[in-house]
Amino acid sequence: MSEPAVHVLAFDVFGTVVDWRSSIIAEGQSLATAKGLSVDWAKFADAWRAGYGPAMERVRRGELPWTKLDALHRLILDQLLVRFGIEGLGEQEKVRLNRAWHRLRPWPDSVAGLERLRRRFVVTTLSNGNVALLTEMAKHAGLPWDCILSAELVRHYKPDPEVYRLVPELFDLRPEQVMMVAAHEADLQAAKQLGLRTAFVHRPLEYGPQTPVPSVPAGRFDYVAEDLVDLAARLGSIGRPGPR
Amino acid sequence: MSEPAVHVLAFDVFGTVVDWRSSIIAEGQSLATAKGLSVDWAKFADAWRAGYGPAMERVRRGELPWTKLDALHRLILDQLLVRFGIEGLGEQEKVRLNRAWHRLRPWPDSVAGLERLRRRFVVTTLSNGNVALLTEMAKHAGLPWDCILSAELVRHYKPDPEVYRLVPELFDLRPEQVMMVAAHEADLQAAKQLGLRTAFVHRPLEYGPQTPVPSVPAGRFDYVAEDLVDLAARLGSIGRPGPR
Repeated sequence: MSEPAVHVLAFDVFGTVVDWRSSIIAEGQSLATAKGLSVDWAKFADAWRAGYGPAMERVRRGELPWTKLDALHRLILDQLLVRFGIEGLGEQEKVRLNRAWHRLRPWPDSVAGLERLRRRFVVTTLSNGNVALLTEMAKHAGLPWDCILSAELVRHYKPDPEVYRLVPELFDLRPEQVMMVAAHEADLQAAKQLGLRTAFVHRPLEYGPQTPVPSVPAGRFDYVAEDLVDLAARLGSIGRPGPR
Repeated sequence: MSEPAVHVLAFDVFGTVVDWRSSIIAEGQSLATAKGLSVDWAKFADAWRAGYGPAMERVRRGELPWTKLDALHRLILDQLLVRFGIEGLGEQEKVRLNRAWHRLRPWPDSVAGLERLRRRFVVTTLSNGNVALLTEMAKHAGLPWDCILSAELVRHYKPDPEVYRLVPELFDLRPEQVMMVAAHEADLQAAKQLGLRTAFVHRPLEYGPQTPVPSVPAGRFDYVAEDLVDLAARLGSIGRPGPR
């Protein structure tokens, strides 16, 4: 093969590695039982996630100073508590609910897939989630990352180029020795623009069973995989075992 | 206990977690066998390590722009190759020798100690080693870090305060909820100045069996431990299991 070996796989996390929607729904239901609340938690989860793009855009435009994702989640949560008529939560309960994003559950294949991939590659997060969120999520979910990289470390949110450039810079690699792995086309397109290789992972249930996910035209990305175990099988031959 | 629970343990790495001296000696001996070299590798290892402080000081003074530790190691290596009369190494062999710092071996208790400590704390590196060095070392040595934090992320070398402040900042903690763990007093003193808690770990063999290590007066640090397994036993009661 004339292409250089890929050394690092950089993963999007929300939706690609963890199932944020069903996890937030379950956290909400458990809170509702404890507090006697009646809320449509699927709508609540979707609204929380929908607030994420516009909140990051406020940071990108400079309308907010750099604000880590935990704090953006909290801004959105405070609005949703009003909108969904959720009353009677103390500050500690709100803090705990906001940290539901630290406790998201992996897709069923994620841990096994990462375990296989890390035998041949450095596997790192490259997420808009802040470092503490990603670190505590990994502990909670058993995600075997080699390293936690975050938009927070460059104070820019994806798809700003600063985030993708962090990986080749830290690892002294050419962009094509790094592969971005994500379930979202925009993330991969931004990585591809900068010369990184790309792997698309299908996550048809990310937005729930009722929301169809568009298919990806063949040839747009270097690899297309059904899940992370499938990705490990497809990438089996291009990685190098052991440190350089 | 009225003191707040410690949430994150931040570890110095060279000397505290890994045995740089015997590892560099072994790498040198293996290279010497392959290339027919005759070198005093203990002296070579000590000289390489001795170059580290002055090289960082050049960065601190602004005489060099920010330079990651891999590159400082290479600057020192190039001088040592001349000084020790080592000839006939190609560029790839020099790169590989310089990356010996990515392959340092842990002290015998390090992996078991960290495994225990990470059940109750977030365990992170907080080292002057660069991110790639620390990540590849962890893979090679099986060090189960929850997260890789490095001086490189703030472009300041310890004991500059920016490095220690990174941990409470990223984890939204008060300084006293973070504990610095190191085998070196200066590192702990700098952390203590900023309000972090401190644990000293004895590593009497760091500079070899012939070089005595000064003892630490009682009461200077919050904890003094024989090794990382002993530290886990001593800290058993102050950590909190699971995410917040």
